[in-house]
Amino acid sequence: MPRQKSQPEPSDDDVSTPAGAPPPPAASANPGAPVDRSQWARPWAQLKYFTFQPAIFPRLLGQVSPDARPGDLVTVYDKAGQRLGAGLYNPRAKIVLRVVAHGAEAELGEAYFERAIRRAVALRRDVFKLDADTDAYRLIGSDGDGLSGLAIDRYGDTLLCEVYSLGMAQRLPGWLPLLHKLAGTKFARVQVDHDLGSLEGIKPSAFKETNAAAPRLVKIREHGVRYEVDFAEGHKTGFFCDQRENRRAVARFTRGARVLDLCCYTGGFSLCAKVLGGADEVTSVDLDEAAIAQAKRNANLNQARLKFVHADAFAYARQMQTNGGQWDVVVLDPPKFIFTREAPGNHEGRKKYEDLNQLAISLVKPGGVFVTCSCSGLLSLEDFEQHVIKAAHRQQRRLQFFDRTGPGADHPVYSNCLESRYLKVLWARVI
Amino acid sequence: MPRQKSQPEPSDDDVSTPAGAPPPPAASANPGAPVDRSQWARPWAQLKYFTFQPAIFPRLLGQVSPDARPGDLVTVYDKAGQRLGAGLYNPRAKIVLRVVAHGAEAELGEAYFERAIRRAVALRRDVFKLDADTDAYRLIGSDGDGLSGLAIDRYGDTLLCEVYSLGMAQRLPGWLPLLHKLAGTKFARVQVDHDLGSLEGIKPSAFKETNAAAPRLVKIREHGVRYEVDFAEGHKTGFFCDQRENRRAVARFTRGARVLDLCCYTGGFSLCAKVLGGADEVTSVDLDEAAIAQAKRNANLNQARLKFVHADAFAYARQMQTNGGQWDVVVLDPPKFIFTREAPGNHEGRKKYEDLNQLAISLVKPGGVFVTCSCSGLLSLEDFEQHVIKAAHRQQRRLQFFDRTGPGADHPVYSNCLESRYLKVLWARVI
Repeated sequence: MPRQKSQPEPSDDDVSTPAGAPPPPAASANPGAPVDRSQWARPWAQLKYFTFQPAIFPRLLGQVSPDARPGDLVTVYDKAGQRLGAGLYNPRAKIVLRVVAHGAEAELGEAYFERAIRRAVALRRDVFKLDADTDAYRLIGSDGDGLSGLAIDRYGDTLLCEVYSLGMAQRLPGWLPLLHKLAGTKFARVQVDHDLGSLEGIKPSAFKETNAAAPRLVKIREHGVRYEVDFAEGHKTGFFCDQRENRRAVARFTRGARVLDLCCYTGGFSLCAKVLGGADEVTSVDLDEAAIAQAKRNANLNQARLKFVHADAFAYARQMQTNGGQWDVVVLDPPKFIFTREAPGNHEGRKKYEDLNQLAISLVKPGGVFVTCSCSGLLSLEDFEQHVIKAAHRQQRRLQFFDRTGPGADHPVYSNCLESRYLKVLWARVI
Repeated sequence: MPRQKSQPEPSDDDVSTPAGAPPPPAASANPGAPVDRSQWARPWAQLKYFTFQPAIFPRLLGQVSPDARPGDLVTVYDKAGQRLGAGLYNPRAKIVLRVVAHGAEAELGEAYFERAIRRAVALRRDVFKLDADTDAYRLIGSDGDGLSGLAIDRYGDTLLCEVYSLGMAQRLPGWLPLLHKLAGTKFARVQVDHDLGSLEGIKPSAFKETNAAAPRLVKIREHGVRYEVDFAEGHKTGFFCDQRENRRAVARFTRGARVLDLCCYTGGFSLCAKVLGGADEVTSVDLDEAAIAQAKRNANLNQARLKFVHADAFAYARQMQTNGGQWDVVVLDPPKFIFTREAPGNHEGRKKYEDLNQLAISLVKPGGVFVTCSCSGLLSLEDFEQHVIKAAHRQQRRLQFFDRTGPGADHPVYSNCLESRYLKVLWARVI
């Protein structure tokens, strides 16, 4: 369930100019003049199109200075020869250039990174004061923090770092002392996807020592609820920080209620419904045995009793629909269903959302609360809402939407990379 | 500043079928059969097009039974002769039929209204438990509560009722005792727009006695901050419940900060920044003298010192831009700028948003927080965001969006009337 996306959905067709990105004035002053590259800050890369987006695919990239090595921070020039920003270059990669800074900030060179890291940590710790609520949050969110290719979550005293580019892999070891100092952490586990690592040219052994020193497992606390986070190799952590505020918000509606948590995963919504919200009974359904096992350990940590059902959500919901089962509150947080912009995959994913929502809505008592999530970045909030409405109206039910939320504030989105948005949550009373 | 819209934006061109609204099965079973209206529940009205939308404009309406009188609750049949719902009819009105209930609920007849009123009040008091936070909230939200044409806010012991249809005007006096019982209120003020009242045929004197008994002014409390709400004839109340949670959320970022509240109106954001958030200094700008006067009274009520500036937001922001003035937090909550779907009005409204946002963004310190609102129902969240991004990028600034919110949960939206959405708030750190 790869939910916490740190990457924009890849699309090398996308050469659109984002809103409000006029070429800098100097460029338009003399648009036809030949470009003199001899004065450019080396190493450099030139774009074929004007864009503020961080992810540059091969067809967007023009010339690159011959001294640019894989992983280098290069000065980025636009097609008119204007200095635009700075980015990490890797000719082997699918995203050959990841622009991290634009404008004056780009001129800081390597010093940009320390500034961006400090700014990212300050956002979570000083601006949002997240430490008061939890010791598990996203510290650095790749494109959402001007650090394209690096995502870091802090879990207690351990940083879980996901590296998506060679440039980040090269620099991360040098940044860890600063990160630990700023975050108050001691250990780091660095994860590199195997295939992506080969493509980018990241040595599999690069982080062996760092990882060996880190704990395999930590216990964290979020709004007073405890969870175990397992970093074991080949495991997902089983914990998603992004739903923090949504988990807490569900608890507002569960006092004395019967709650159904469809696709409960490791039990976050279920536990908040029970422990924070005082639900009478929580039924937690998931097909993933490892997730259910983790959910049970989390329930034990909180001395909470949940009714676990190891089943496919579609099959379980269909069975309950046949039996006429109904709940006061139904939460539906399925894994990502949409992986492509293209038909038929895109269409099939949308159909899954519609079908599963239709089943789930049929299980909400009249007047009950329905909370439905989508973590598919390729499905817009509006489209998701339309599918959910269709699902409700087909059941002859109406939805009274009272909120639409996203991930917690520690998952920000930069104005030049809205594509990195993914999580949408709709809140409705079912009439 | 008519912000708290209770009406979908009128558009008699709109005959679109909302998502997932298939004709009921029986209709398609025999689509070509002649319709026998003799068995229909009288009075009735038949639609020309299939729609779940509450607002039916003349061109959508087919035949109406001759016994249907202005203000009557009529049974609504679809074009295939299937019973679809029930609605309030008024041949004189712009919206000739306001469908309040669909499906089985419609069969309750007049009893539907009591059910819907109880449901609406229960949402605010039992589900959201709003009384814990405030004594000012929307109790009934017209289309958002299946009560098209009636909006009621409670302010302390007084209900402020806005009536948009004859059918609601006829019934409201009979409902007031129930409303007072459910809400724990004592008084009611009923407001009918003069032009709309003439069109609908609502007697101007209808609510004279009720209004005469109600206080002219009440003091309310929201998250511990006090406000005066003035019902004086021809006045807006000067208080919008919809921004409640956004007002509180701003306070998270204002400890020790210098805050600029552009279009401060009666001071809600300013007071929360100061009183709840502990801002060092708040500058509150508005062109409306009556609003500023009210804001001053509100500041006195809370013993809070704000710096008031009586000025046009554009002019003030331009002046401050020239002076190089910058703030830690800037809040921009302008009045509605978009009143039409058509060019040039629509385009001009959008340009105002873009220009004012560009000015406001230039006044945010690097790393400061920018909170920007739009209450134009005809501007989508996505479009608003694009205009704001354009405004930022033109200033060579980047926005790090960390939330997108709407009105409080007491302003729900029904799945068959998304057009009633209006308030959007974007939260960003300015880089």
